[in-house]
Amino acid sequence: MDFLSNFLMDFVKQLQSPTLSFLIGGMVIAACGSQLQIPESICKIIVFMLLTKIGLTGGMAIRNSNLTEMVLPALFSVAIGILIVFIARYTLARMPKVKTVDAIATGGLFGAVSGSTMAAALTLLEEQKIPYEAWAGALYPFMDIPALVTAIVVANIYLNKKKRKEAAFASAQGAYSKQPVAAGDYSSSSDYPSSRREYAQQESGDHRVKIWPIVEESLQGPALSAMLLGVALGLFARPESVYEGFYDPLFRGLLSILMLVMGMEAWSRISELRKVAQWYVVYSIVAPLAHGFIAFGLGMIAHYATGFSMGGVVVLAVIAASSSDISGPPTLRAGIPSANPSAYIGASTAIGTPVAIGIAIPLFLGLAQTIGG
Amino acid sequence: MDFLSNFLMDFVKQLQSPTLSFLIGGMVIAACGSQLQIPESICKIIVFMLLTKIGLTGGMAIRNSNLTEMVLPALFSVAIGILIVFIARYTLARMPKVKTVDAIATGGLFGAVSGSTMAAALTLLEEQKIPYEAWAGALYPFMDIPALVTAIVVANIYLNKKKRKEAAFASAQGAYSKQPVAAGDYSSSSDYPSSRREYAQQESGDHRVKIWPIVEESLQGPALSAMLLGVALGLFARPESVYEGFYDPLFRGLLSILMLVMGMEAWSRISELRKVAQWYVVYSIVAPLAHGFIAFGLGMIAHYATGFSMGGVVVLAVIAASSSDISGPPTLRAGIPSANPSAYIGASTAIGTPVAIGIAIPLFLGLAQTIGG
Amino acid sequence: MDFLSNFLMDFVKQLQSPTLSFLIGGMVIAACGSQLQIPESICKIIVFMLLTKIGLTGGMAIRNSNLTEMVLPALFSVAIGILIVFIARYTLARMPKVKTVDAIATGGLFGAVSGSTMAAALTLLEEQKIPYEAWAGALYPFMDIPALVTAIVVANIYLNKKKRKEAAFASAQGAYSKQPVAAGDYSSSSDYPSSRREYAQQESGDHRVKIWPIVEESLQGPALSAMLLGVALGLFARPESVYEGFYDPLFRGLLSILMLVMGMEAWSRISELRKVAQWYVVYSIVAPLAHGFIAFGLGMIAHYATGFSMGGVVVLAVIAASSSDISGPPTLRAGIPSANPSAYIGASTAIGTPVAIGIAIPLFLGLAQTIGG
Repeated sequence: MDFLSNFLMDFVKQLQSPTLSFLIGGMVIAACGSQLQIPESICKIIVFMLLTKIGLTGGMAIRNSNLTEMVLPALFSVAIGILIVFIARYTLARMPKVKTVDAIATGGLFGAVSGSTMAAALTLLEEQKIPYEAWAGALYPFMDIPALVTAIVVANIYLNKKKRKEAAFASAQGAYSKQPVAAGDYSSSSDYPSSRREYAQQESGDHRVKIWPIVEESLQGPALSAMLLGVALGLFARPESVYEGFYDPLFRGLLSILMLVMGMEAWSRISELRKVAQWYVVYSIVAPLAHGFIAFGLGMIAHYATGFSMGGVVVLAVIAASSSDISGPPTLRAGIPSANPSAYIGASTAIGTPVAIGIAIPLFLGLAQTIGG
Repeated sequence: MDFLSNFLMDFVKQLQSPTLSFLIGGMVIAACGSQLQIPESICKIIVFMLLTKIGLTGGMAIRNSNLTEMVLPALFSVAIGILIVFIARYTLARMPKVKTVDAIATGGLFGAVSGSTMAAALTLLEEQKIPYEAWAGALYPFMDIPALVTAIVVANIYLNKKKRKEAAFASAQGAYSKQPVAAGDYSSSSDYPSSRREYAQQESGDHRVKIWPIVEESLQGPALSAMLLGVALGLFARPESVYEGFYDPLFRGLLSILMLVMGMEAWSRISELRKVAQWYVVYSIVAPLAHGFIAFGLGMIAHYATGFSMGGVVVLAVIAASSSDISGPPTLRAGIPSANPSAYIGASTAIGTPVAIGIAIPLFLGLAQTIGG
Repeated sequence: MDFLSNFLMDFVKQLQSPTLSFLIGGMVIAACGSQLQIPESICKIIVFMLLTKIGLTGGMAIRNSNLTEMVLPALFSVAIGILIVFIARYTLARMPKVKTVDAIATGGLFGAVSGSTMAAALTLLEEQKIPYEAWAGALYPFMDIPALVTAIVVANIYLNKKKRKEAAFASAQGAYSKQPVAAGDYSSSSDYPSSRREYAQQESGDHRVKIWPIVEESLQGPALSAMLLGVALGLFARPESVYEGFYDPLFRGLLSILMLVMGMEAWSRISELRKVAQWYVVYSIVAPLAHGFIAFGLGMIAHYATGFSMGGVVVLAVIAASSSDISGPPTLRAGIPSANPSAYIGASTAIGTPVAIGIAIPLFLGLAQTIGG
């Protein structure tokens, strides 16, 4: 009983934190039809500053820390990133009216990491005075890149297999009929390659998908390159003065503006969801929590095995619960061009992100406090 | 003599304050033909941050204060907002070459409130260490919305009456002539409805103007919705950390940039004023001071009756003196589409706002210090 | 030996400073193909804030200081600005495949001053705790304007002379041939006037170039007008509160973002350089250092003659080493329309600025520390 009542009180208190209350505020004013707009350029510079700050924190921490501690959490991050895609492949993709490539892309997006969600978690950990490893933010790419790579590879293997099967089926039937091949719920045209990159791979009959270009594209995205720049500067330069006088003190305030934008954005995307199968709604509510619990469990193993902090466990759970909002979509659009962006972006922005920030963060924070305290 | 010399010294000292000196600086560099431009997106985020901060201050104050104190000043705010429109209706509108609908719209704009002007007044009060109620900023919507609603209602009643009169006149003359009706200085075409909303109301012969949509539109404007969001967060969440670390410390600096922009904007709008009747110039110089004195007088009644602070009296006088620059114009454009925007926007931005900030604020501040000190 | 090892250690340490490491970081991520973008509007407001801050510092300093100290450094600034143009006229312009007007324009750009480079130098001086006169930033226009004016005047005198020579030559040959006149490497069309302003001057046979419009245009540029606004406010207003609470604390952080942008920009402009003669590359590497050494020498004279601080000597050397990136190009484009912008802008942005910030600043700082310490 104490567990539950403590947990609920913590939960409500966290909804009152600046981070979460601005998110909720954004949804409310969007629902009220507010004309308020935060310009696109402001959102871009805020994301840059948040991720540079997280990178700088990580880089300066790595400079002074024992990196062997980071090995197990980093390995778990990679494993979770890959696992999430396969979960989507064998749950969401099996649902009626859900196209397999769309489901795989959605899995990739939910496996990838949202810098803003992570920033919200780090802020709430600080507000609750729960210590965590300063390099915890640097786990981001270890989960983000494997998830995107896995999604693109799995989708392309699926598409190649399907194409060969259809070709064999078509040639077998060729003598009898010239009708186009119908493959379940899929319209064949939309599953066929629509970008030159994908096409070239299939044309040449090459069934291996090139992994390096996907990794490279992820690393070059604005969010990850800002973070890696921060890590590099934290490691090799002496950015302490701008860190302490600029990036760190402005962090929470800038995050509050970004949360507001994400709340407004989430509300405005809800209508897109109506156009796709309702299973996306179910998935985007359940998946962040399920992924978070898996990561929380693995994090606890690292906690007992190598002394990974409870705060670090929360960070791991939250980056697993989060879904990419900035860098993921363009990478997936280029890598799986036949998938429908309004399916995966709508699910992630309208439901996945609010669930990750508004439910998963307070949930895992409360869990960590109850277990650890 | 002491009164006057004290007052003049205060006046000059206030012109040297960052707020007013950046306003004057903006007018000077615009007059010198400077190529300096502050991007539109920066202005938008500054307005958002200023009004969110004012809202947060108000919300947190309301949480801890006796709201019965607010009743009388709020009632006076409503009364002043309505009164200002009728003043314009019976002074400016009677002047030669001034169209009645334009005059009513101008009155609406001068009755509505400028968030930036209010921010300037609050900053100067703090610099002069004159205490004021923290909820004083929350008087904004109590004057802003009634003024806009009154202007739109009065304009539509006027237009309906005029239309019926013309229709009667036309049908009376109908047998003799098919010539269009000339109504004094007005070109009949420009007084006729030009938007669907207004048209529909007149078409149906409905003489009541719907008030709720106007209130809703005002509340949804970017300035008011940022402020109300701040109030709500201040009331229901715990935004203290971002308030103290972000919104509050950046307030004055951001205001200085906005003042610069308003000075440059005022200068560049002066040419627009030449196109409209010179009575707009007279009105925009006299009205802010006249409205301010009325509000100052009512504020003094509240001062003696319920202990409303002298700083609060200054805030009331300044929001009465101010004219809306962000949210007002689009609401009026939608509500009174037959009014000429270059008449009311030019008068407000080029003269009304500089007079309110550069003359009314130091004037009422000086007055409050001399009376209160 | 000690001199050299101290100098090298200082040099490496300065590359690790936030300012220089963000510049290098920008070049590295651009080279890695990062998709990171800092929006244009953010760059504009950063430049505004940096130069306003430098102006405010200067203005407040001038209010409290003995201006006779400033006379000699200001005179030297004017002399260096003029000299740099003539150096380009008699070195770069004589190189094969280099057009004379392009070389003169390039000299003008390298004589003009970069506000960002100066901001970087001031920040590094503060980090190294080397004192300098607070009015040192106000030397900027004393070098910037004479350089631009000289370049435009020299270029127009050259073009007029050439035109008359060609006209004389053409009329001498007129009877024999109607072929167009070829003048060395220049295509006559590109040396002929392409803007109305230049044209009008030549058409009227007026060989004097009007100097005042060039000065006016320089002063109206966004960088200089922000700085002069700051100086004026520092002198005549009381901006201390916004200076201490806003412009000063944000200075270094904003500079770090601008340095990143300049690094990325430098990298992306390198390709443009391939299209112009390779002598531009040689010039842009050598000129910043050569100009810096000349200024350092003159600064040392002022040091011994009037007690100009060693920090001030570094500022003088760095503004001589810097080349204009914001205000200079549009002024030159208008004043010498026949010069090829990709020649002078490419040389300045891709090589001149990185050399000035990354090599000249640490070099002259190290020199000042070794001489002064």
